[in-house]
Amino acid sequence: MISVAIMGHGVVGSGVDEIIRTHKDRLFSAIGEELDVKYILDLRDFPDSPHADRFTKNFEDIVNDVEVRVVAEAMGGLNPAYDYTKRLLKAGKSVVTSNKELVAQHGAELLQIAKDNNANYLFEASVGGGIPIIRPLSKCLAANNVDEIAGILNGTTNFILTKMIAEGMGFDEALKIAQELGYAEKDPTADVEGHDACRKICILASLAYGKHVYPDNVHTEGITKITLEDVQYAANYGCVIKLIGRCKVEEGGMMDIGVAPMFVPCSSQLANINDVFNGIMVRGDCTGDVVFYGKGAGKLPTASAVVADVIDCALHLKRRKLIFWADSKEQNILPMEESKTALYIRINTEDKEAAYNTLTSALGEVKTLSRVDAPENEVAFATANEVKYGDALNAVEALKAQGAEVISVIRIGNL
Amino acid sequence: MISVAIMGHGVVGSGVDEIIRTHKDRLFSAIGEELDVKYILDLRDFPDSPHADRFTKNFEDIVNDVEVRVVAEAMGGLNPAYDYTKRLLKAGKSVVTSNKELVAQHGAELLQIAKDNNANYLFEASVGGGIPIIRPLSKCLAANNVDEIAGILNGTTNFILTKMIAEGMGFDEALKIAQELGYAEKDPTADVEGHDACRKICILASLAYGKHVYPDNVHTEGITKITLEDVQYAANYGCVIKLIGRCKVEEGGMMDIGVAPMFVPCSSQLANINDVFNGIMVRGDCTGDVVFYGKGAGKLPTASAVVADVIDCALHLKRRKLIFWADSKEQNILPMEESKTALYIRINTEDKEAAYNTLTSALGEVKTLSRVDAPENEVAFATANEVKYGDALNAVEALKAQGAEVISVIRIGNL
Repeated sequence: MISVAIMGHGVVGSGVDEIIRTHKDRLFSAIGEELDVKYILDLRDFPDSPHADRFTKNFEDIVNDVEVRVVAEAMGGLNPAYDYTKRLLKAGKSVVTSNKELVAQHGAELLQIAKDNNANYLFEASVGGGIPIIRPLSKCLAANNVDEIAGILNGTTNFILTKMIAEGMGFDEALKIAQELGYAEKDPTADVEGHDACRKICILASLAYGKHVYPDNVHTEGITKITLEDVQYAANYGCVIKLIGRCKVEEGGMMDIGVAPMFVPCSSQLANINDVFNGIMVRGDCTGDVVFYGKGAGKLPTASAVVADVIDCALHLKRRKLIFWADSKEQNILPMEESKTALYIRINTEDKEAAYNTLTSALGEVKTLSRVDAPENEVAFATANEVKYGDALNAVEALKAQGAEVISVIRIGNL
Repeated sequence: MISVAIMGHGVVGSGVDEIIRTHKDRLFSAIGEELDVKYILDLRDFPDSPHADRFTKNFEDIVNDVEVRVVAEAMGGLNPAYDYTKRLLKAGKSVVTSNKELVAQHGAELLQIAKDNNANYLFEASVGGGIPIIRPLSKCLAANNVDEIAGILNGTTNFILTKMIAEGMGFDEALKIAQELGYAEKDPTADVEGHDACRKICILASLAYGKHVYPDNVHTEGITKITLEDVQYAANYGCVIKLIGRCKVEEGGMMDIGVAPMFVPCSSQLANINDVFNGIMVRGDCTGDVVFYGKGAGKLPTASAVVADVIDCALHLKRRKLIFWADSKEQNILPMEESKTALYIRINTEDKEAAYNTLTSALGEVKTLSRVDAPENEVAFATANEVKYGDALNAVEALKAQGAEVISVIRIGNL
């Protein structure tokens, strides 16, 4: 019998407890031993839980119990999860987590502590919920150089964008429905401003390239400025707008990483990922594009990924899993201005020809896009090729100097 | 340094050699040691290969060399790969393979021999080429009960069907183009009759449910009878026709497994998988639907999956990976007649009303489908609900007895 503890009895933590209770046979056949939930850490009381007798409010019970070999951290947030995780790893216990904020912020340090103490720190559930991505990226695609990773990493924003695209619903109304359905929080900032997606692409980038990428260093845009007009232009250009987290290592080793809404060609596998679903594309130099699709959040999908990591730890109690990346203080992130991308630019202007000329001279060939019922003075362009984002910002300034009102600047993904 | 051997220098085997040569740094950082290709087994000469000096025509060189710890078998076919693999495993060497025929036919035995000799037998490349599926299914989804697996497992037939669907091309012409492009072999039987897909679904079913499923016991239909008329009816019903390998365990433990062309709703993720790409949907009781997408064949995608297995073996030289299933002589496959599915039935008849009445009385509610330019005496139906396939076959006989000519009977997938 292997004793485990679960920290946090919210959505994910209670799901972990439920799966361990309801999948006993499956877990036994996977591990060859029984998993026993010895402690559940939560400050609240849950007298109706089948495991009501396992609850504790005292973290010391867990860290000091030598029987506990694996701990599932489902508390979320940085504190006290960060301190608790460090103490558990230093005590030689393996920790598995769904806490993307903690992994994105302190992953390198926690992986090092795990290594120093011959323990494992696993986090399959931190990206893509129930979608297998951490293990496939580190194991199955290990013989590839990863050229690029791009994904729809946040279900809330994908739900909102799907409503806008499929039903012509405005952002505010779509957000309201997402909140009513429990897909968006009362304060939706972390989702709609892209911070959640940023944490996840940082974890994937750190894993794929072996050096920690800190979220604070990553350019992040949300979807709050996306309008139905942009959605229409995208459709007429054969695209849908998705919030994409992506990273790519340029020649010279600089990492081009960011989170932003993007035009995604309808022919891309990522274009067909709708509602709260997530999808992650990994472009390997040998495999070509591989895409992973599924539910990126939710109680049981996320909890099942946590429990899969518990199983893996249980099978590797005295051995290290080779999931690791190094800390990195060096500045290896490409400045946003140097990042190359094709662009869509929508403006209001009295002089469309001047705007066209300004853009073509700054950014090379551009195409003029159309939509029905566009106001007389509205015009939208798409660059035919990738341009430096800094050059595009300069071109935007030049347009403004000509008296144009620049309404939208959205990247066009090569996905 | 870890010495490996590669058996076979065809498409996959030469790719394995190429990746090990061209990805030295990546492999070193994954393993912590260098991989050295000590032998390449092939009866042909390759004087221009950078590894020309490593070639041997004698299997005994490999099996008798104690330095060789991992062998990549990329010979294909049952013989001599079967004997060679057994001898290598008995010598305590780990074997990795892309050989789906061998795994589907002798997987249980070879896994047992590997277990008995503390060696590993891995086969990520045998299903889905470069798409990670074996490891995710056995590890990441380990906390789930797998309710169903369904996949587009053969790129050749998917290419042909895509041509038929997207370009209105006939089967024969599409097959000819597939052959010209090297996607189909001169004798395309194994692909177009579904045998290749059958081997792959057998491997996935064996892995997911822990008991060997033999291809000979699995009902298999190919796509040679699919016509453009069927493609049109499918489109008007909101579906595309795909060759689907699927398995599902029914209550009571009987496995419903088979390969057949199916109507796939356009809303399904599997509907958007086109050309030579593969896609595999795993329906877990916790995760819901998870889909894996990518190139299901080809030199480097498949070879990269083989090399990923080589890495895993190199990291587990003295330890066993827990990928295993037991042999099973018991008859646990649901007879095709008992399998439940919704169905599309197309007939020629002078009495459509009689046909409709026959079908509704036998199969419950049916919908009448349409297509433009259908001949006067043609009619197609879709059952509103799942029916027993045996009942459908009886209904087809009844239609024939009424003088109808039954042209097509195609399953409608709940995917």
